[in-house]
Amino acid sequence: MAERGRGWARAVRGLLLDVSGVLYDSGADGGVPIAGSVEAVRRIKASGLKLQLCTNETQATRESFVRKLRALGFDIAVAQVTAPAPAACHLLRERGLRPHLLVHDDLVPEFAEIDKTNPNCVVLGDAAENFTYANLNEAFRLLIGMEKPVLISLGKGRYYKETDGLKLDVGAYMKALEYACDIQAEVVGKPSKRFFESALAELGVPPEQAIMIGDDIVNDVGGAQQCGMRALQVRTGKFSFSSLSNPGTVKEGCSFREGYST
Amino acid sequence: MAERGRGWARAVRGLLLDVSGVLYDSGADGGVPIAGSVEAVRRIKASGLKLQLCTNETQATRESFVRKLRALGFDIAVAQVTAPAPAACHLLRERGLRPHLLVHDDLVPEFAEIDKTNPNCVVLGDAAENFTYANLNEAFRLLIGMEKPVLISLGKGRYYKETDGLKLDVGAYMKALEYACDIQAEVVGKPSKRFFESALAELGVPPEQAIMIGDDIVNDVGGAQQCGMRALQVRTGKFSFSSLSNPGTVKEGCSFREGYST
Repeated sequence: MAERGRGWARAVRGLLLDVSGVLYDSGADGGVPIAGSVEAVRRIKASGLKLQLCTNETQATRESFVRKLRALGFDIAVAQVTAPAPAACHLLRERGLRPHLLVHDDLVPEFAEIDKTNPNCVVLGDAAENFTYANLNEAFRLLIGMEKPVLISLGKGRYYKETDGLKLDVGAYMKALEYACDIQAEVVGKPSKRFFESALAELGVPPEQAIMIGDDIVNDVGGAQQCGMRALQVRTGKFSFSSLSNPGTVKEGCSFREGYST
Repeated sequence: MAERGRGWARAVRGLLLDVSGVLYDSGADGGVPIAGSVEAVRRIKASGLKLQLCTNETQATRESFVRKLRALGFDIAVAQVTAPAPAACHLLRERGLRPHLLVHDDLVPEFAEIDKTNPNCVVLGDAAENFTYANLNEAFRLLIGMEKPVLISLGKGRYYKETDGLKLDVGAYMKALEYACDIQAEVVGKPSKRFFESALAELGVPPEQAIMIGDDIVNDVGGAQQCGMRALQVRTGKFSFSSLSNPGTVKEGCSFREGYST
């Protein structure tokens, strides 16, 4: 078993890390690093392992997100972050889609170069306080008025943990609009296979030599496994033991660790 | 066919009428009657047919709802209205449940006699402007913190029509909380069989001698059929032809009519 364990570890050349709930707990105050995580990132980099952050963060542009992480002590570059908004812009251009945005104010600059006149789709992010009844109705009316409604959701998370408690994530609002319009959203971000493939391409490591580390059993662990990667679930962030009893399509055998203690 | 038509009509002794989209289009201004509907109600009553309004209205107490309808010209008494909030109060008492309310401010008085301390369930109504991110999070946190989360939804409509356009209904927010908490809500109101049975009991007519008239193919037509009644869908309110192509579990053979022209 010890031999097998070392062989397993030797085959790993790169790590994909989720951010919220793994490196830090987000919050209105900018959030706080999870104990040991700054040192963990430093040691990963020192070890020669390749590192890419794979996040569904959509409350800020990648640039301001990285500024925040650097202020918290993480030595991370913008190119080391794979996030849904740039991936969505790529998709919008590819398909000639003009979005109506229901996203956080701080994410809007990511879509600066995208034509938003006469919208023919809705892009939904973690809009937080922008999830008002009026804004939801506006997005709903646009969708229900389209011959073929196109709803693009930046992730489909159920909830996440901030410093002041759990918060509803974009997936809950995606479900509300899906139900109201009787449609299925297209998810850009974890757990989409295409999104993990982009992250692996940026990491420069094939799936069998990479490990995804996250706190979400479906979006992090399940999504990575669907892509042929191994995955670890941390017990920080929104982790709860009850999530283990109903992991959906996640394979058995994923490992767990307690915080960042070594 | 003419004979059969007359026989069919002769067997009818009572009508259940949906209200929003059938008798009037609601709105911030109190709403406006649909052309011909005041006269239609007058003629139904003059004909000797029994009449009960069967509504999922949860933006007001039954008393104030009836006041509004009377101001619009409808000769209706409070006892002629079957609505979800009184049915929910019955259920809460029956099961010793203490609700946290996420409902419209004007509905709160319906729950005046109900113990709301230390909530062990969430009651969700058409809260409209009260569907803020903060209020949704509060309901979500209560549910996710319960050992066995109980979410009671006053209806599960997708949307409805107000004078200034379509609006998201309670069902969309029910789906958001169901998804976030991985639970199934209990629906009080249409299309629940128990709710239609209460309305029929108040009407005093067995299902085979009653007809439900509404603009919602699932909640009005489908729900009534599940209860052994026949149902008609009007082409007012939120009716759209596209809804006919995907009626879900609704049986074939429901009839339609255009507005209230005779």
